Amino acid sequence: MAARRPAPGETLVHFFDINSEAPGKSRSWSPNTLPIRAVLNYKMAPYTQTYVAMPDIEPLLKSLHVPPLEGGRVPYTLPAILHKPSINNEGATLNDSFALAVHLETIFPPEAGYKSIFPNGQCSYALAVAILKVFRSIYPPVLPFCYPAVPKYLDERSREYFYASRKQMLGMTMDEFEAKGEALEEAWKATEAEIAVLVKMLKGRPGPRKHRGPFLEGEHPGYADMVLLGFMGWFQKNSQADLDRLLKMGDGELQKVWDAGHQWLEAEGENVEYEIPK
Amino acid sequence: MAARRPAPGETLVHFFDINSEAPGKSRSWSPNTLPIRAVLNYKMAPYTQTYVAMPDIEPLLKSLHVPPLEGGRVPYTLPAILHKPSINNEGATLNDSFALAVHLETIFPPEAGYKSIFPNGQCSYALAVAILKVFRSIYPPVLPFCYPAVPKYLDERSREYFYASRKQMLGMTMDEFEAKGEALEEAWKATEAEIAVLVKMLKGRPGPRKHRGPFLEGEHPGYADMVLLGFMGWFQKNSQADLDRLLKMGDGELQKVWDAGHQWLEAEGENVEYEIPK
Repeated sequence: MAARRPAPGETLVHFFDINSEAPGKSRSWSPNTLPIRAVLNYKMAPYTQTYVAMPDIEPLLKSLHVPPLEGGRVPYTLPAILHKPSINNEGATLNDSFALAVHLETIFPPEAGYKSIFPNGQCSYALAVAILKVFRSIYPPVLPFCYPAVPKYLDERSREYFYASRKQMLGMTMDEFEAKGEALEEAWKATEAEIAVLVKMLKGRPGPRKHRGPFLEGEHPGYADMVLLGFMGWFQKNSQADLDRLLKMGDGELQKVWDAGHQWLEAEGENVEYEIPK
Repeated sequence: MAARRPAPGETLVHFFDINSEAPGKSRSWSPNTLPIRAVLNYKMAPYTQTYVAMPDIEPLLKSLHVPPLEGGRVPYTLPAILHKPSINNEGATLNDSFALAVHLETIFPPEAGYKSIFPNGQCSYALAVAILKVFRSIYPPVLPFCYPAVPKYLDERSREYFYASRKQMLGMTMDEFEAKGEALEEAWKATEAEIAVLVKMLKGRPGPRKHRGPFLEGEHPGYADMVLLGFMGWFQKNSQADLDRLLKMGDGELQKVWDAGHQWLEAEGENVEYEIPK
């Protein structure tokens, strides 16, 4: 008798990502899901995955008894992780990125030989919270050129959903929202002004120092670095030219982070079918 | 023959703070200068000090060949440190808080037995940069009730200067700027919403953990903690009731930081006369 194949989340962590039509290992694209994928890959944690079209996210999460996120403009979002052995709620599912990161650190801990995403303990944790706040100032200038690039790699159902939901959120069509010409140049300048704080962090203390690592935390990345890498990965999906322009900001600090960590953004999990309730 | 007494900054670090009429060890009040005082006191570094009335800051710094701060609304500010043995510019003076903190870490290093304000290395440095950015969101809601409290403890010349300079900066009188009644309550609510990010950092990872320290960085404070303590110290000078209300935000995390670190805000340096060029 053949062994029964475990259902998604029954033994391995099952990762719900947002679908795209980007090929193979580049299929993951969202700046919200990429940091969690980076955590899983950096830890070399085994996981399975399902790509979910945008209109299916809310029904999926409701079927898994996930409450809407508080305070967010999008109450049902991915990433989410389904894992019956470790998540003790009705649907065995979590969907807040940072809560997920903390959970993954708990179930794949350094004591068991996994790499830590909080290599400096409480300092790493505080830095991760602070970075998420810092990024809230970085998103406004980038959205007018990053949002319009998203639909080109989405599947058709997600594309329609993205256009409709963003029109409602922004109060205008994507075409009206898109920064063009001089406005685009202004958006990039505003982006660079906000990215300056990340560059300053990455530069580290002035003067010669040993072991000045490429990452925000130094030689070893932490969750704050995964958030930065996920943001960079989104730029790459949107346009290689956009990523190149981003990486040129500062004096090469961002390029070093990208070179050292972009491999963790690749889709490594085994794809598993998961029937989304309609 | 009696030994000549060294001039300010000739041997010891000489710290220029902003004057006030608050008594004794509570004389220091500025959220910009208090973190540097906290660094000196935490490191138990020997220093002398001079309190400078606000209208004298610009002539003082110009006489010491300090260039105006870039990007700031107030180009000549304290803290500043005069130290001929370690500061290799024309006036032997530095006046950007964070640059000062880094300099003090260099000249009072852990290798020489001084406590470190970057106890987690590059992670501490990145956290300090991030905290300064986070505070840029905290200042707007607090200014409408913190600024109006400042003149009550300033000396008369500083008070006049403060009223005039802030009127120019704000485009209105202090009385017009002051939040009263419902606007005051709104300002406090907006403050609490911004302080939430600090509370989240201080809470640390959920779940039982060993050595969860009172500070942003854990058991040992870093420069990020000194910035937070300086901010709290300013609230205390403004009004004990304001400090109490601030410390009640969250679930006691801020109170623990205050209890563990407020002693570093006290004016410990020896007062030394320094003739300000007019």
